[in-house]
Amino acid sequence: MKKTILVFTVAAVILFQSIAYAGNEPRISFMPVPSHVEYTSGNFRLDESFAVELIGNANVRLFPALTRILHRLVGRTGIFLTNDFITHNPKPENATMTISVARAGLLSVNEDESYSLTVTSQRITLTAETDLGAMHGLETFLQLLDNDSNGYFFQGCFIRDVPRFPWRGLLIDVCRHFMPMEVLKRNIDGMAAVKLNVLHLHLSEDQGFRVECKTFPKLHELGSDGMYYTHEQIRELLAYANARGIRVIPEFDVPSHSTSWFVGYPELASKPGPYAIERHWGVYNPTIDPTKEKTYKFLDAFFKEMSGLFNDEYFHIGGDENTGRHWDENPDIKTFMKKNNIPNNHALQDYFLGRVSKIFQKYHKKIVGWEEVMRQSSSTGTIIQTWREDKVLEEAVRKGYHVIVSRGYYIDLMYSAENHYENDVIPKNLQLSEKETKQILGAEATMWTEFVTPENIDSRIWPRTAAIAERFWSNDNVNDVRDMYRRLDVMSFRLEELGLTHQKNGEMMLRRLTNNADVAALKTFIDVVEPLKEYQRFDKGKDFASYSSYGRVMDAATADARSARVFSWLVNDYLADTTKKLLLDTVASYLKIWKQNHAELIKTIRMSPMLQEIESLSKDLASVAAIGSEAVEMIRSNKRADAHWVKNSLATLQKAKEQRGQCELMVLVPIEKLVTLTQIQ
Amino acid sequence: MKKTILVFTVAAVILFQSIAYAGNEPRISFMPVPSHVEYTSGNFRLDESFAVELIGNANVRLFPALTRILHRLVGRTGIFLTNDFITHNPKPENATMTISVARAGLLSVNEDESYSLTVTSQRITLTAETDLGAMHGLETFLQLLDNDSNGYFFQGCFIRDVPRFPWRGLLIDVCRHFMPMEVLKRNIDGMAAVKLNVLHLHLSEDQGFRVECKTFPKLHELGSDGMYYTHEQIRELLAYANARGIRVIPEFDVPSHSTSWFVGYPELASKPGPYAIERHWGVYNPTIDPTKEKTYKFLDAFFKEMSGLFNDEYFHIGGDENTGRHWDENPDIKTFMKKNNIPNNHALQDYFLGRVSKIFQKYHKKIVGWEEVMRQSSSTGTIIQTWREDKVLEEAVRKGYHVIVSRGYYIDLMYSAENHYENDVIPKNLQLSEKETKQILGAEATMWTEFVTPENIDSRIWPRTAAIAERFWSNDNVNDVRDMYRRLDVMSFRLEELGLTHQKNGEMMLRRLTNNADVAALKTFIDVVEPLKEYQRFDKGKDFASYSSYGRVMDAATADARSARVFSWLVNDYLADTTKKLLLDTVASYLKIWKQNHAELIKTIRMSPMLQEIESLSKDLASVAAIGSEAVEMIRSNKRADAHWVKNSLATLQKAKEQRGQCELMVLVPIEKLVTLTQIQ
Repeated sequence: MKKTILVFTVAAVILFQSIAYAGNEPRISFMPVPSHVEYTSGNFRLDESFAVELIGNANVRLFPALTRILHRLVGRTGIFLTNDFITHNPKPENATMTISVARAGLLSVNEDESYSLTVTSQRITLTAETDLGAMHGLETFLQLLDNDSNGYFFQGCFIRDVPRFPWRGLLIDVCRHFMPMEVLKRNIDGMAAVKLNVLHLHLSEDQGFRVECKTFPKLHELGSDGMYYTHEQIRELLAYANARGIRVIPEFDVPSHSTSWFVGYPELASKPGPYAIERHWGVYNPTIDPTKEKTYKFLDAFFKEMSGLFNDEYFHIGGDENTGRHWDENPDIKTFMKKNNIPNNHALQDYFLGRVSKIFQKYHKKIVGWEEVMRQSSSTGTIIQTWREDKVLEEAVRKGYHVIVSRGYYIDLMYSAENHYENDVIPKNLQLSEKETKQILGAEATMWTEFVTPENIDSRIWPRTAAIAERFWSNDNVNDVRDMYRRLDVMSFRLEELGLTHQKNGEMMLRRLTNNADVAALKTFIDVVEPLKEYQRFDKGKDFASYSSYGRVMDAATADARSARVFSWLVNDYLADTTKKLLLDTVASYLKIWKQNHAELIKTIRMSPMLQEIESLSKDLASVAAIGSEAVEMIRSNKRADAHWVKNSLATLQKAKEQRGQCELMVLVPIEKLVTLTQIQ
Repeated sequence: MKKTILVFTVAAVILFQSIAYAGNEPRISFMPVPSHVEYTSGNFRLDESFAVELIGNANVRLFPALTRILHRLVGRTGIFLTNDFITHNPKPENATMTISVARAGLLSVNEDESYSLTVTSQRITLTAETDLGAMHGLETFLQLLDNDSNGYFFQGCFIRDVPRFPWRGLLIDVCRHFMPMEVLKRNIDGMAAVKLNVLHLHLSEDQGFRVECKTFPKLHELGSDGMYYTHEQIRELLAYANARGIRVIPEFDVPSHSTSWFVGYPELASKPGPYAIERHWGVYNPTIDPTKEKTYKFLDAFFKEMSGLFNDEYFHIGGDENTGRHWDENPDIKTFMKKNNIPNNHALQDYFLGRVSKIFQKYHKKIVGWEEVMRQSSSTGTIIQTWREDKVLEEAVRKGYHVIVSRGYYIDLMYSAENHYENDVIPKNLQLSEKETKQILGAEATMWTEFVTPENIDSRIWPRTAAIAERFWSNDNVNDVRDMYRRLDVMSFRLEELGLTHQKNGEMMLRRLTNNADVAALKTFIDVVEPLKEYQRFDKGKDFASYSSYGRVMDAATADARSARVFSWLVNDYLADTTKKLLLDTVASYLKIWKQNHAELIKTIRMSPMLQEIESLSKDLASVAAIGSEAVEMIRSNKRADAHWVKNSLATLQKAKEQRGQCELMVLVPIEKLVTLTQIQ
């Protein structure tokens, strides 16, 4: 029975897709979409004789980069290439692809990342000013791979591509949950595949200090539970990122978010110790004491070491969410403020950040801070990273700051890919001069990890971040949401070859949740629910801590419930044109699946107590699907619903909005629309 | 249609399992089975109040080990434990589990690894002499976890457990294909879960030199393509293994298998250079020159560095597969042999190994070598690792050598778990004295990696190595193959929580092979085929090299084709008792699935050229399944087959034995049995 249900799901999706793209479904799925694409006639067929030559003056990183690209090509096709291992400038006699690079790229903001790619039936040509551009072009080249039943080919085309923003980043918080090296490495590969170029590492927090510090070893020894990166690992990571054209920006968050510093060095804090590593989530009061000279002596030595270790010209110093509580409670700090005419905590933070800025000037670093640093800082040399307030972007740009936008790209909040995709880096209604526009360096998606572990982090980052990467790279007129989702599916599949676990770990979690039983009913359920969004989990959850369970249904569910999305499109399309009866049939088949699913899922729940928390939500899915089915029947037969039924149905739908197991049903709005439609026929 | 077929498969497996274990299916699935288990009445129910106390004098490694165990428990149950992070000797007031350890275990052969575990409804008690025993006991504790529809519990029991052999190892070849740190780490966790205690790393080969060497940096700089472990990584790995009670034995293979050494140091070789890293598979001639004093000066300095880096008292020096060709071809070596009365290459290797042994005496290491070192070596201090010859084990033991057995445990040869499981470490017909028995330290499974990459290595090691680990740990009277497979399924599922990718990467490879289409038909096919066994792939394959495609069907197929195994059991059981008509029904339903599968799979093949190589094998599966179906029909109706049909059928079956795509069909023998049965009714 369960399996029969699955058949319907698959059939329905296929049916819907063929409706959506009937006749002219594009085979090529770029992501991000290049600036300029022209298709030409004639395909380049791939076989064992395929051979690449490199000309020009590329950075040596291009050789292994090219080897990796060829290896992925071999993995996708099974073809045994003879020219598959590039250790130096290859000049094979019968080269069929030419890569031409003028010079080695510098890993710095505003470097030339453009490329052009030409495919004819005889030859592929990739040309770029820098190897960074060439590496982007090689990713586009792989995205061009296509096949028919006879073999593999690249469609004839001419592409010219250049990014919209020079700073295209992903922040990973390795403090709330530590992320082993391989998590960062595989995500760096994923970033490169979608042409992101900045990995922002959030390295110190209340919950952990994550880098070995040779100057003050108690920072990592006492502040990390043994979970930190050694200097050698950081260097390994930087080399790995550099090899893929990605800059690494370290963030050590001061003066707040700093409990873990104080475990080893309580003398830095505004209140006396002892301190312990924070094991819960939230905004905490421990804050560096900005009034003592020895604080700055410590920070100078510390930032000196870290400025040497991390080689990018930018350095992030946090600066967010200072509650000021511990400053208020320290009489010495009050005295200091009075003596130095510092009127309030904002001014005190300004003083602190001024002192910190001076330290970084010595070490030739530009500093970046969260938007809170802007209101206090008088120096427009600090780069402002927006995250919370609506008006910050405009205010900062008008004041002359350079800006990185993260507001709208907080992927930990579990909004859909569509939500982030439709949020442009520069709001449509914001009028900026050319100069002001240039002050917006770019944007960063942020992966905060309170509810995220090495096991499911990839499913929080991917595939959504590929859609966000398109927003950062492609022209702002690339904004067809359905086509984005079509291409995102392909990208998601392709990202697996880089070792990313977003798909496979999800399946593994379902196996664990069902106690290794048949996962079909749970899969049907999970495809229509999403975990609670924003910070609701804090309010409505258990007392989450570092080692709590992060393998529950909500942790396996993703921010893009697939069936719910397709269902919602079907309903909207039908409402837009009620002559399309075929759409209504597909709607009905979805509803039928959901109506029947609880009877199956309850069996699994009985065998796996971990699933009990979603039992009533699963039951509600059956109830609302039954209502939807009745509505569809009435619509089909042009029968107007009686008011009593409508009232009861809407009440049931309303009640089903309540979260259970920290998940919510994503099919309620379209079902409400169907119910509403029964009133107006 | 495809989905309907799947229903049959699942139904058939469930049906068969209920036949096999009707009524008294054991819920507990130990692996390896403990020496002594007694079940008692009363279960210990698990809830949030569960708290552990530690008493005695354990090694500090037990605290994080216990944290990891609790974390896995939380992952399996979703329960928020309050006592979940063990950083020191915890003494919670309401402890419900007591772990008592007398002393810190030493990571050395013959350390006490025993433990006892008692579960009552009120309390769990784990007692061990050493923390190594306690860690084994904690794995058994996790294997005891059970549930009903109300929640989770541990069945009341008393267990006393001690290993059969002190040396229980897994060799991983990181040379043919380099294995990143995380591959080794997750496999160390897997090893600990099945109570293995030795990781043998094969670190140098013709194809790569994999450890940073500070004394002779050209070894790793020129011999590794940049793929090697730094000293810091090796130390990190040793610490990781130590924390899990696992010793690490390094192997640097001399005097042959050493091409990669000569890329940087051609002066060590028996023939002049230059040398390049070998990129193909096989047995090659480059060999260290044993006649020059500077060879030993080099080896002394080299082994000194490595003896300091690797902290185990054992060190493996290889010594296998010296072709002697380059010695024969070097006139200076011939002169040396004449001058020193060395009659042949065997004696020359003996001379070389004697010199190497002396070096290791200085550095207080015991040396291990492959069986070839025995015939020449006069020193019984060398530990012999058997791998090829039948008689070596007995010969070595009689001569007084200590022995590690790898013959029969070459998991790269792609034999089934059953095959290895039924191969005892000590052959049944071998009569040994008690002293001789004790000379057999234990055994090692060997994962050579010519055809194995980081992507599929876990599926080559697991779950088979869990069955092998049972062979190394449990009494030799634990040998019920079907029960082993039942427990192996559970173990395979549980091993996923350690990050092992044997299941999930297999699914990913199917997605890639089908070009992200429906994998059902390919899954049905792959469940009845196995990759070519032994070294047949060398003869029958393409010219495999380091970067060839290792993502084809044969690389996704495993050594235990599940449906084929169950089908074979069904046929055998029916032949043993032809009154069991229900078995024949299940046989028929399998055959029906396979008969229909090609019609589906061919559609997938048309969309994914990588699959073309298995097209005719898939077609043959349909043909032989049709024959099987006809045979079943005749058997059911007690109709004797005509000779012509039998002859043609057997010929078709014979022809289907031919490999295609380096895979073979595993259902031919049972179908032949059915055909044969039609003749004798």
